[in-house]
Amino acid sequence: MSQDARNPSGAPDRSSPDGHHGPSRRALLGWGGSGLALGAVAAGGAVAAVRSEGATAPVGPSGAEVPFHGPHQAGIATAVQDRLHFAAFDVTTQDRARLAALLQEWTRAAELMTAGHPVGEGAYGGLPEAPPDDTGEALGLKPSRLTLTIGFGPSLFAKGRFGLEDRRPEALVELPKFPGDNLDASRSGGDLCVQACADDPQVAVHAIRNLARIGMGRTAIRWSQLGFGKTSSTTPEEQTPRNMMGFKDGTRNVSGTDAAALKKHVWVGERDGSGWMSAGSYLVARRIRMHIETWDRAPLQEQEDIFGRDKGEGAPVGKAKERDEPFLKAMLPSAHVRLAHPDTNDGATILRRGYSFTDGTDGLGRLDAGLFFLAYQRDVRTGFIPVQRSLAAHDALNEYIQHVGSAVFAVPPGVRDKDDWWGRALFS
Amino acid sequence: MSQDARNPSGAPDRSSPDGHHGPSRRALLGWGGSGLALGAVAAGGAVAAVRSEGATAPVGPSGAEVPFHGPHQAGIATAVQDRLHFAAFDVTTQDRARLAALLQEWTRAAELMTAGHPVGEGAYGGLPEAPPDDTGEALGLKPSRLTLTIGFGPSLFAKGRFGLEDRRPEALVELPKFPGDNLDASRSGGDLCVQACADDPQVAVHAIRNLARIGMGRTAIRWSQLGFGKTSSTTPEEQTPRNMMGFKDGTRNVSGTDAAALKKHVWVGERDGSGWMSAGSYLVARRIRMHIETWDRAPLQEQEDIFGRDKGEGAPVGKAKERDEPFLKAMLPSAHVRLAHPDTNDGATILRRGYSFTDGTDGLGRLDAGLFFLAYQRDVRTGFIPVQRSLAAHDALNEYIQHVGSAVFAVPPGVRDKDDWWGRALFS
Repeated sequence: MSQDARNPSGAPDRSSPDGHHGPSRRALLGWGGSGLALGAVAAGGAVAAVRSEGATAPVGPSGAEVPFHGPHQAGIATAVQDRLHFAAFDVTTQDRARLAALLQEWTRAAELMTAGHPVGEGAYGGLPEAPPDDTGEALGLKPSRLTLTIGFGPSLFAKGRFGLEDRRPEALVELPKFPGDNLDASRSGGDLCVQACADDPQVAVHAIRNLARIGMGRTAIRWSQLGFGKTSSTTPEEQTPRNMMGFKDGTRNVSGTDAAALKKHVWVGERDGSGWMSAGSYLVARRIRMHIETWDRAPLQEQEDIFGRDKGEGAPVGKAKERDEPFLKAMLPSAHVRLAHPDTNDGATILRRGYSFTDGTDGLGRLDAGLFFLAYQRDVRTGFIPVQRSLAAHDALNEYIQHVGSAVFAVPPGVRDKDDWWGRALFS
Repeated sequence: MSQDARNPSGAPDRSSPDGHHGPSRRALLGWGGSGLALGAVAAGGAVAAVRSEGATAPVGPSGAEVPFHGPHQAGIATAVQDRLHFAAFDVTTQDRARLAALLQEWTRAAELMTAGHPVGEGAYGGLPEAPPDDTGEALGLKPSRLTLTIGFGPSLFAKGRFGLEDRRPEALVELPKFPGDNLDASRSGGDLCVQACADDPQVAVHAIRNLARIGMGRTAIRWSQLGFGKTSSTTPEEQTPRNMMGFKDGTRNVSGTDAAALKKHVWVGERDGSGWMSAGSYLVARRIRMHIETWDRAPLQEQEDIFGRDKGEGAPVGKAKERDEPFLKAMLPSAHVRLAHPDTNDGATILRRGYSFTDGTDGLGRLDAGLFFLAYQRDVRTGFIPVQRSLAAHDALNEYIQHVGSAVFAVPPGVRDKDDWWGRALFS
């Protein structure tokens, strides 16, 4: 029975509520192909086709496609999508060439998936006696603004592993231990990370799962985190999302369209050392557990004093509107907004891209909920580290939160075209 | 500073992609009120206002409001929303009157939240020296088709607890141990459950959290489960969603608009015994872990043989289209679809409403992913139990799945009006 006969296109796509119809994973079903293995060469032709299809994709808020190729990786300045699946990987192979080949295969798969297509030669283009190239659960779903963003952890550069010890950027430092840290090693670190953001969580979960599957025998998932709702946006024109404490979060975040601010605070410059990282960024990930049951018993005034903003509108202390300039001295010295402000930290500015999480219960009748904090910056030594030193030492919020996971990654520049791949400059 | 001044309504709501504008939680911000405590009496006036506003709400697929009141609880026949937060509670009070009061408070809060409003007298209508009535993270979000559905577990009826032992329905049996069950007690059972379904997960999480907060001192969360994507729909006209094995799931599910099928298979009849359960239903919840890494290595043909449907289209063996009538004898005797079919189980038919989950990793480099199975039925003894006996004994899929959590609940009928409350007929 041919693929066409088995997969008539009469069934409608699961439409997005806005009625946009981006290229669907289903559209790839009819593809034939002589190659079976997913590889850089075999997938090259598919990528070209995808790119030309992608050019016709409608630009819209929901089902649309975010271009994968560019000078910077997507998923950093990109307007923040609603859902997240994040995974840190251990590299289990000791062979540098096998690792480089994996990164090429991952890149080809990422090109396909971010365009709304299954990996490989069509979802079920394989022979019946072989496992399908794609796991299938995103078939018929739209690109959903999926972005996939890779990072390299400090451990990847360790001596005796892949010969990368001389390529480690100076800026890729291990984070210091901050007061109050209660880090779980099994939720920290990682040789590689992939951040999958999408408006449909099934699309994000599918992407991580298929990368994990492609990596089998060469990588293993070390930890992963689902984020159900964004807590920061990079689009100041939109309503600011609220975190699990009920406060607006990210009001003064770096805007994804502010090229000057991105250049100054987010993108690694050509003269920042480690040429292979030029146009890249550095990512700090922190799993921050919130003691929400305790928080929920705190009086409104105390909650607002702790943040330095009012809860309803999000206005800084003494001001009327959310986006009014904060007057820091009107806030308590221990107020979160005051301590995190660039003026308190020699101008340190980071692009936040965190998500709320709820991972069941903790065995004590409390929700295991909080903020999976993600921040991009040009240099962690002048970005996250000074900000977190201030917060860890003085933040009144510390009574209600605890950092339980931590990782830092060098995020290489974007994949330029179909001949390029994640980390090429590092491994070449 | 007045609430109005602090919360100017100039900031736009986070719009749903379809551009519908349902009543927003923000709209309640300006509410004043003399009462502070959330209680049946204090909230009564608010509910009336909500209902009159609700009548003007647009009916749409995304941000809309699902009516809370009716002969049946919403969240059963209701078109399945995209996201789930489910919680099972232990009742910690031993006082029947306090439990009944809690159920009244929960009902009032559910009326407000499903209409898109914060609980209590406006989100921050309380005094500054008191904790806010509502935790705030859903402020500004739309109703998002939120439904809240309550259930009562067998343990609630135990002798010596609340004097309900004579009210326990005969149909509320403990599930037998099925072959292959590997149940985790900390993810099983519960005196009460609340199923929160919504198109925005933040709205579902907010609802469970606020019910848990209201219940503090009387209930404690026993376990909870986030579901990121629906795997079954009750709307056959829509595209059938796919589960984490990549297969369409719920093709032949009971339709939420098929009154005859609902009456026959889902709603408890007046003559089914236990009058207080008339127009209610019984819910089975099973946490089913999928060994997706192993599944992903299985050949396509084997996967299709195991299910009894093809993977792309979802057509039964030997047929061309998903909705073609299955010819069971063409399938392997161990095929999942064959074993689950009503013809194999004396007509047993259940309404499935499950969700995919991904809860991080299992410590062995594998995703802790699978299906959180939810099924409603008129009687578990003629519904889930015979179906699961067939599957547990013979299903070829058992090699790839394991049931790790289990619970059963009596789901009372709907709340008729603002004087009614969840469980009134049971406690009166």
